[in-house]
This record gives sequence, C-alpha cells and structure tokens, in this order.
Amino acid sequence: MLYGPYDVRSEERPDPTIIEPTDAIIRITATCVCGSDLWPYRGIEPIDAPLPMGHEYVGIVEKVGSEVATIKPGQFVIGSFVISDNTCPICQAGYQSKCVNAEFVSAGIGTQAEYARIPLADGTLVATPDIPDDDLVPSLLAASDVLGTGWFAAVEAQAGPGKTVAVVGDGAIGLMGILAAKQLGAERIIAMSRHNDRQRLAREFGATDIVTERGDAGVAKIKKLTDGLGAHSVIEAVGTQESMMQAIHSTRPGGHVGYVGVSHGVELPGEDLFFAEVHLMGGPAPVRRFLPELIDRIWTRQINPGKVFDLTLPLDQAAEGYKAMDDRRAIKALLMPQGA
Amino acid sequence: MLYGPYDVRSEERPDPTIIEPTDAIIRITATCVCGSDLWPYRGIEPIDAPLPMGHEYVGIVEKVGSEVATIKPGQFVIGSFVISDNTCPICQAGYQSKCVNAEFVSAGIGTQAEYARIPLADGTLVATPDIPDDDLVPSLLAASDVLGTGWFAAVEAQAGPGKTVAVVGDGAIGLMGILAAKQLGAERIIAMSRHNDRQRLAREFGATDIVTERGDAGVAKIKKLTDGLGAHSVIEAVGTQESMMQAIHSTRPGGHVGYVGVSHGVELPGEDLFFAEVHLMGGPAPVRRFLPELIDRIWTRQINPGKVFDLTLPLDQAAEGYKAMDDRRAIKALLMPQGA
Repeated sequence: MLYGPYDVRSEERPDPTIIEPTDAIIRITATCVCGSDLWPYRGIEPIDAPLPMGHEYVGIVEKVGSEVATIKPGQFVIGSFVISDNTCPICQAGYQSKCVNAEFVSAGIGTQAEYARIPLADGTLVATPDIPDDDLVPSLLAASDVLGTGWFAAVEAQAGPGKTVAVVGDGAIGLMGILAAKQLGAERIIAMSRHNDRQRLAREFGATDIVTERGDAGVAKIKKLTDGLGAHSVIEAVGTQESMMQAIHSTRPGGHVGYVGVSHGVELPGEDLFFAEVHLMGGPAPVRRFLPELIDRIWTRQINPGKVFDLTLPLDQAAEGYKAMDDRRAIKALLMPQGA
Repeated sequence: MLYGPYDVRSEERPDPTIIEPTDAIIRITATCVCGSDLWPYRGIEPIDAPLPMGHEYVGIVEKVGSEVATIKPGQFVIGSFVISDNTCPICQAGYQSKCVNAEFVSAGIGTQAEYARIPLADGTLVATPDIPDDDLVPSLLAASDVLGTGWFAAVEAQAGPGKTVAVVGDGAIGLMGILAAKQLGAERIIAMSRHNDRQRLAREFGATDIVTERGDAGVAKIKKLTDGLGAHSVIEAVGTQESMMQAIHSTRPGGHVGYVGVSHGVELPGEDLFFAEVHLMGGPAPVRRFLPELIDRIWTRQINPGKVFDLTLPLDQAAEGYKAMDDRRAIKALLMPQGA
C-alpha cells in the first residue's frame, strides 16, 4: 500500500472475492515494481492514499465467476496491466489496452498482494501450457508489462530485418525493447545508455552499439552512426520532453517512433513534428495482443526477459524494492508473495 | 511577387536560365495559388519581400542542363512542390519531400510565372505520355500539390476498404483527401465542412456524410456516427491546434491520422496523445512518390481533381486570385501564364 510519497507499507487486507460473474481470483506467484509505480511513489502523480499498488502479475487461478468460460481454477495465468474483454472492435484490431471496457489494474486492484481479483478474466488472462518451472516465472512475469510494452514499442517502431533501431531509455522497458527488436530481426540496435550495468544487459539482449550522449548530442551521435539519416526505428521508453524530442529527432524521415514511456509534462511542437515527418505511435501497450506469442517464446526458452529482475524480495519487503529502484540500485524488483 | 501583406504584384522579371547541369527550364502552362500561400499573404508567416510566389506547376520543358538524362525538351511535365533527387535512401523509401537534397520550390523559385528553373529535373519532374488535352491541364496541375498532398494524407491515414475516414478541413487539400479516400476504397467518408459549396464538391468527390460541427462537438458527432469508437482513418488538412486535436480525438484507438495542414502554433499535449493511442504521421507530402500513379488516373479519366479550381485567371491578375481565396470566394485559383 502506498500511503504517500516514499511511504510504502505491507499490511494485512481482506482477501478479494468474486464481484462480477466475469471475475477470477488468482493467487499471485510473483509480482513486481514498475518504473511507472515510481511516479506516484515520488509524489509526482497525486494519489488517493492509501492506494493498493501493483499491476504486473502471474499466478494460479483460485476461483472464477459463473460466466468465466475459458479460464479454469488451477491454471497458471498471466494477464496484462489493462483489463480487456478481447472481443470489442478495438480489441479485435489489437489495441486491447484501449478496449471499450478497459480498466487499469493499477487503478485500485493492486497486484502487489497475495491474491487479486481480475475482472473480465476470459479476455484478460492467458494460461500457460502447464505449471511453469520456477526459473521461467520471472520471464513470464516480465511478459505482463515490461516485455509486452517493449515488444509493442518495437512493433510500432517497425523494428525488423534491415532496420537500424535506436532505443531511448535504459530502464526495464528500454531493455525489453532491445530484446524485442533483436527477436524481430533488426540488423543494428543502438542502446542509448550511460549506466555500465545496463549497457551490459543491453548488449546481452542484442544491442550492437551504445550511445552515452543524450539530447541533441545523442541525436547527433545517432545521425553520425546512420550516414546522417537517423535510425529507421526508434523506441522511446522514458516519457519526458527530452526523451520524446530525442526519439523524434533520432528518426529518419519516414521512419517510425514507438513511444511507451508514460508521458509526463510533454508538449510536442507541431511545426517540429510536421517537418520531422516521422510516424509516431504509442501509449499504454496492448500487451494482451502479444501474450500468446511471448509465452511461447519464453516456454520454449528462446528468450529470457526475466534477467531484467536484478533484485528479488519477499512481498513484505516491497518498500525496499521501491527504494532500490528509486535509488537506481536495482533495474527492477521482483516480489514473492508466497515466499521465495 | 509578394511585396508584403496583401500586396501581390505582377511584374516583368528576367527569364530564368540553367544554373546547375541538373536544371531544367520549363514554360509554365498553368500554375495556381495554394492555401499555404495565404499564410505569408496574410502576414502570418514573415517573408523577405519581394518574394517570387508559387510552387505548383505544369508546363513544357524548354531547355535542360547537360546532366539531365531522362527529361527532354518538348515534354509536358509535372513536378512536386519539393525538389528531390529521387535516388537517396529517403527518396527510395518514398519520402521525397525529405530528400537529402530537398529544396522547397516556394523558397525562391516561384512558379507563378511564365518560366521557372526546376533543379534536379530528373528526380523532380514526371512527363505525361503526350501533350495533354486542355481539359486535363487543371487536374494535372492539381497533382503537383493538392491532389498529391491529399493522397498522401489518405495513404498515411490508411484509408481503404472497410474503413471509415473523417476529413478535417474542407479546403482544396481536404477535398482532395476525400477524392483519394474514395479512390483507395474507403467504405464511408465523413467530410467536416460548414460551407455549402464545399459540401457539394465533397459529396461529388465521394463524401458519404457531412458533419458541420467543429472541435469537441465535431468529435462527439464523429463518435456518434461510429458506434462511439471514432473513425479508423482521419485526414487533417488545416494545421491549427483545434484541427489537430479534432483529428486526434476523432480517431479510434489504434487508428491513423494523416496530417498535412501546415502546422501553425500547434502544441500537442503528450499525455493526451499517449492515451489517445493513435498513429500520427504527416508533414510536407512526398508528392513525387504518387505522381506516376496520379498522372495515370487523370490521363485515363478515372478522376477529375481539376474541379477543385473554381476560379481561372490570367497570370497578371494573380492578385485577384489571392484576394478571392482569402475572402473564401474561391476554393482555389488557377493562373494561366500563357493566356487562357
């Protein structure tokens, strides 16, 4: 529970129950702290305290409502950080995060807990082929948000064969964007990072070049690496004015920016955008679209996105997870509600 | 020549000559006044006066430089309002308006004249199969900018079969966007227009619905017409803050906005954009990409975009053309340098 800036507390709360017949109750196997959780943690996003935190989750289905048809008790499931019915025209077009019945898990559900009630279970949850081996759990958890979000950014940036991809931001999402770009077949992947440990992980996930400069100097470096043209594809994973402009200006005309850093205080100058002439697409990632494919790649051990977790804590030490991420001592903290 | 706000003069100037070996000199058959010419005409865009005006043109090649290989004297040609080499990687990707050697025709060339020097003739100009019949000239002239620009907007908005397309702006570009959406197979085309004469032309070009409301009321109307979802594809052809926000908010999540109204004083709020989750792409249209196809459709009389010209004047009465468009008495004024 977040009580106010820098005030995370672990406390006993009543177990959630089925409210709607389309709900499922899941026993959370693993959850984590998201970079976006740091905005309210730092007091930059005002909240109605005390707020149940957490929107990433994997776990075992305990109970389902009477109208839940495909999800069954006992299944190991992963869901997106946005509830979706997966049947409306927006979902069918692949934008489940904007489902006509969308609901943010972060808005009151709170998966940094032992149990969570997941609405629209059939539309939101995807079951794995079986109960996973323990070592797959972190990667499956990553699929719930950071991997799905990085994947979406890479897809919207049209990362693929023959493409040079630049990635703005070396947090968990940026790193997952690198992994996604690599999986999608990108020829060259330039990570913009100035932290040694993250550069190492970036290279492990597929980065071919590292650029440490930021802002205009970063743009100049990307241009220099791409015959003066800019990258074909740019993934933006920060959400500030500087990072957005860095992403837009690092993209060649006709290229694509996929932006997934939650926008804070950004104002895009229209003329600048008009003459940059790049494709811009982003927002909360429709993770649900990618879950079956991502689960498959994890299950068959083609990818290991779980490496992005460099700190694992029991749930009751959640406060330390927030602090470590805020201090940049950890990239991403995994929390174990059932003990490690 | 534009001498200052609302001060257009017709005057004798020296004939242009070949400067670079890649230049061509063309005798202008027809030219016109662009909506974007009204920005400096109204004094909103500051200029170095006196400024030769005009960037739309069709005509007969008079002379070519020693390195011009494909364009020949005597050919009837159409060029884009942006000079391009058509060989650089940006051109090859279809974004000739951002060619590494791009130059705006409006920046000093001035095609509201009897003759014009066109740089990079091989890359910029496209010849018609033969000297066109007189009645095809206005349509071919339209391809030089407004048709090509509306077409680009429709393509970037992904107008096509099964799609509902909304068009913000009922000037020449918006009307051409309607024509393009129709040709690209759009199922439903909603023109946002409050002028009777333009509504009539909009319907003639393919609009199936007319919405007269603007801003939030216009958005609400589009939502009402599309099951609350918004249009799949939105063409923005104005360039103001209101029109851009109207376009973005009229688009369903995952949909596409193609924006071609030259941006003036626009600031896009990042959060708004993030949660709208629409594809955004625009800028100066790479008309050169579409010229061969557009010429073919005009030549075979599949389309008649020349109808957008509702005023024809001899070149020496250009001032009246500007005035009529500024007063909204004319949608678009065609100027005949060689007499009608």
